[in-house]
Amino acid sequence: MSSNKWKRSERVGALIEMLTTSPRKLYSLGEFAGFFNAARSTISEDLSLTRQVLKNLGRGHIETIAGPAGGVRYIPGVAEWRRLELLNELRQRLTDPERILPGNYIYMTDCIYDPKTCNLLGEIFASYYYKTAPDAVVTVETKGIPLAMATAYYLNVPVIAARRDHLITEGTSVSINYVSGSSRSIQTMSLARRSLSSGKKVLIIDDFMRGGGTIKGLMELMVEFEATVVGVGVLLSTASPAQKLVNDYISMLILDDVDTINNKISMHVSHFYKK
Amino acid sequence: MSSNKWKRSERVGALIEMLTTSPRKLYSLGEFAGFFNAARSTISEDLSLTRQVLKNLGRGHIETIAGPAGGVRYIPGVAEWRRLELLNELRQRLTDPERILPGNYIYMTDCIYDPKTCNLLGEIFASYYYKTAPDAVVTVETKGIPLAMATAYYLNVPVIAARRDHLITEGTSVSINYVSGSSRSIQTMSLARRSLSSGKKVLIIDDFMRGGGTIKGLMELMVEFEATVVGVGVLLSTASPAQKLVNDYISMLILDDVDTINNKISMHVSHFYKK
Repeated sequence: MSSNKWKRSERVGALIEMLTTSPRKLYSLGEFAGFFNAARSTISEDLSLTRQVLKNLGRGHIETIAGPAGGVRYIPGVAEWRRLELLNELRQRLTDPERILPGNYIYMTDCIYDPKTCNLLGEIFASYYYKTAPDAVVTVETKGIPLAMATAYYLNVPVIAARRDHLITEGTSVSINYVSGSSRSIQTMSLARRSLSSGKKVLIIDDFMRGGGTIKGLMELMVEFEATVVGVGVLLSTASPAQKLVNDYISMLILDDVDTINNKISMHVSHFYKK
Repeated sequence: MSSNKWKRSERVGALIEMLTTSPRKLYSLGEFAGFFNAARSTISEDLSLTRQVLKNLGRGHIETIAGPAGGVRYIPGVAEWRRLELLNELRQRLTDPERILPGNYIYMTDCIYDPKTCNLLGEIFASYYYKTAPDAVVTVETKGIPLAMATAYYLNVPVIAARRDHLITEGTSVSINYVSGSSRSIQTMSLARRSLSSGKKVLIIDDFMRGGGTIKGLMELMVEFEATVVGVGVLLSTASPAQKLVNDYISMLILDDVDTINNKISMHVSHFYKK
């Protein structure tokens, strides 16, 4: 593969592909020099061009780690204009009155199961929590899984999905009971012992939060695994109740009101992203 | 964005990013010419270089559609050497005797929830079934979801996930009972009416198949939605029983035997991919 000569434009194209499809993975300059059969100084110039392309497209950036064990890696990122474009479009889709479900819920399964949307949401979560360096993304089945997978992809870590029952056939498992903040009913959540070793840092990702009971349940489950929760991210949370069972979280969209009489959904884009 | 002048290497880098992150999406040459503020002939030369890069990296290819409504698009693909590398590595991981679970099952949740592996598996499924042009990828919760999302991403279609109960709060739903091929017990599977309009072509993706009961259940559910099943893909299937309830499917890996006495798992890579 690397025996033939690569043109500069081909090297830049390949660098874009290699770096962006392996977020957080450190590549040494020597590795690239070997792969492309080119001088390190040439690779450095290629990387400047690569940086410019990523910037123009509103993607993340390339970080340089100095020193003998150093190299470059892709840090996930979504430019503010791309984030607002996506979330405003999503807000538009989700406020269609036909989405109103019994109990003031809204139907959003189709948006979660749209891979392109989901991937972009995942890169936003990943870029926000990148510096907390989680070892895994934790969620609870079912609808949290697509968002968790996309986020984990950009953080280059695995996903751990708790089950909503205790029918675990995967060896020893830990189950906890928790009170769902909205329905006030007692639920069970389980996770196989082997799925997470102790002492890890985890990022919790889910699709929806009202009272925060499910996420509080996940946090309690994490205590059993001696894991540290470094962050909580949800796609949509409700404005009411303002007091959730979880304090520290980010939500991409806020559901202000579901007016079943006038058939109207009010929702706004969250501004957590602004520094 | 497009007002400043792009260098050739920057254009090739951007083309790689734009095409591969929007598989199956048709871009006209005029669109690219406008975006890069360059002549169409220049873009054509850039695309030749882009093709070369994708080939060298073992990715898919760029298809050209002629005519006024034509353009170019990325067709998902994984070179045979990359496919074998991935599946042999996966076989290695999955045959660790510690994975043996009661009932001759094997633990593979961690491999499914590994986003990088999952993405590559998805691109393999997508490239195999690309020509059948499905409108959606259908799976059943929970472990089929990551593979279905990855496959759907490369086919640029949504995922439809059936539930294993009938607790659907998403309006009218269709439920069916099916006999699990392995446990011989009667199970329920449901799907909200609104999640799939009638007359669509669907691709079924799941993680595991023994008897084929679950997938047959999904196929029966699809009849209720007047959908045509264009293909069935699973990550792992068992060699026994040789006679499944489903005839036409591809499986990436075949589980030949789980020998609980000698603590040994036998598995081989399937060769469906060879033409």
